[in-house]
Amino acid sequence: MPLTHGTHPCFPRAPGDVKTHTSYLTFTTKKRQEIIDITDDVEACRAAAGITEGFVLVSAMHISASVFVNDHEPGLWQDILDWLDTRIAPWSPEDYRHNSGTGEDNAAAHLRSLTVGHEVMVPVTRGRLDFGPWQRVFYGEWDGKRAKRVVLKAMGV
Amino acid sequence: MPLTHGTHPCFPRAPGDVKTHTSYLTFTTKKRQEIIDITDDVEACRAAAGITEGFVLVSAMHISASVFVNDHEPGLWQDILDWLDTRIAPWSPEDYRHNSGTGEDNAAAHLRSLTVGHEVMVPVTRGRLDFGPWQRVFYGEWDGKRAKRVVLKAMGV
Amino acid sequence: MPLTHGTHPCFPRAPGDVKTHTSYLTFTTKKRQEIIDITDDVEACRAAAGITEGFVLVSAMHISASVFVNDHEPGLWQDILDWLDTRIAPWSPEDYRHNSGTGEDNAAAHLRSLTVGHEVMVPVTRGRLDFGPWQRVFYGEWDGKRAKRVVLKAMGV
Repeated sequence: MPLTHGTHPCFPRAPGDVKTHTSYLTFTTKKRQEIIDITDDVEACRAAAGITEGFVLVSAMHISASVFVNDHEPGLWQDILDWLDTRIAPWSPEDYRHNSGTGEDNAAAHLRSLTVGHEVMVPVTRGRLDFGPWQRVFYGEWDGKRAKRVVLKAMGV
Repeated sequence: MPLTHGTHPCFPRAPGDVKTHTSYLTFTTKKRQEIIDITDDVEACRAAAGITEGFVLVSAMHISASVFVNDHEPGLWQDILDWLDTRIAPWSPEDYRHNSGTGEDNAAAHLRSLTVGHEVMVPVTRGRLDFGPWQRVFYGEWDGKRAKRVVLKAMGV
Repeated sequence: MPLTHGTHPCFPRAPGDVKTHTSYLTFTTKKRQEIIDITDDVEACRAAAGITEGFVLVSAMHISASVFVNDHEPGLWQDILDWLDTRIAPWSPEDYRHNSGTGEDNAAAHLRSLTVGHEVMVPVTRGRLDFGPWQRVFYGEWDGKRAKRVVLKAMGV
């Protein structure tokens, strides 16, 4: 029998009920360690997905880099670089097993990635990144001067 | 031509197929550093969203605070505060660039936020927070005595 | 009145528009500290969910363990264990309040979990874990020799 729905038209909906969008950033830093504000790229991914409620995952695709949320303040960025190098994981290539036999000298960059983390999930509410007043998203390059990538993936409604 | 579906009635479904719910917590701690169990608020957000499968993001909206999962044990909370202050990031305001020129003295709180992290994703399974027996969610205030917020965002089905 | 949709058939869709799948891993390590590659289990969860776009949450269900993304390189794993023990959180049971009165001696394992984190969100794109060339997912056991669990939860389309 034919279906009737009163005032509710029956439109089949595409699999895009839940919308996703994926984009990638590539960085080739001039310095081996560098901190880069990527908040505008996160918002661009949200907008491209067309979501008003959901999440944007921002994740480094390398194991010697970080993604984190903190303050857009150059003094603090230098504090972070110094703190990683003096207190958390000194570069000292000769101190790490990873640096013998692999041809690598960047074990410290791996440990810095573990400490600061390699990804963040950004909440999206009412069509905006749902951040407090000072929160910004950063890419932390701990072993750069070569092309490295970040994946941004939005999912929501 | 009219559509027929046998036993499957064709009901258009609202955008709420995937459900989301967002809530906010505000803390004004008496002490500058404090650890607060917010697990019940996470469950309240899940229940308000009405989801049985999905995630709840719990994210500090400030860059001098953390959200983390650990143990409801006051001795450990004091261990965490001591460890952050002696081993990870001593308060020592004069040691940080961030504290000169910005009028701030809380660079250490930023570094503690980077170390412990500012967010967690809590899995929801069969209508419950899918935690092991000892897991609880905490807000870690590293520079309080002023109103600060946490966003909770549930998304699922 | 009967509904017509031209070339669009109106199929009601099950709540599985968004698909989720949850699985659990259990580890009983021989050594008290151990690092185990669980990437294949993450992919198995994605495949079981049947998602091509979305996320897989991988989360330790214990507060003395970690889940992290890094390098499949045994020298580095030993570097991580040494670094946690010498620089981040020495085992020294007598140094922690948590270890007096609770019958526990594992406060350091809690602090290591806080530093490295207990969960990761893995992006899924075009039916694959969207990782860079060296990224692998690991379970970090900081207080083992007993059964401990990890939850994997995929959600997407």
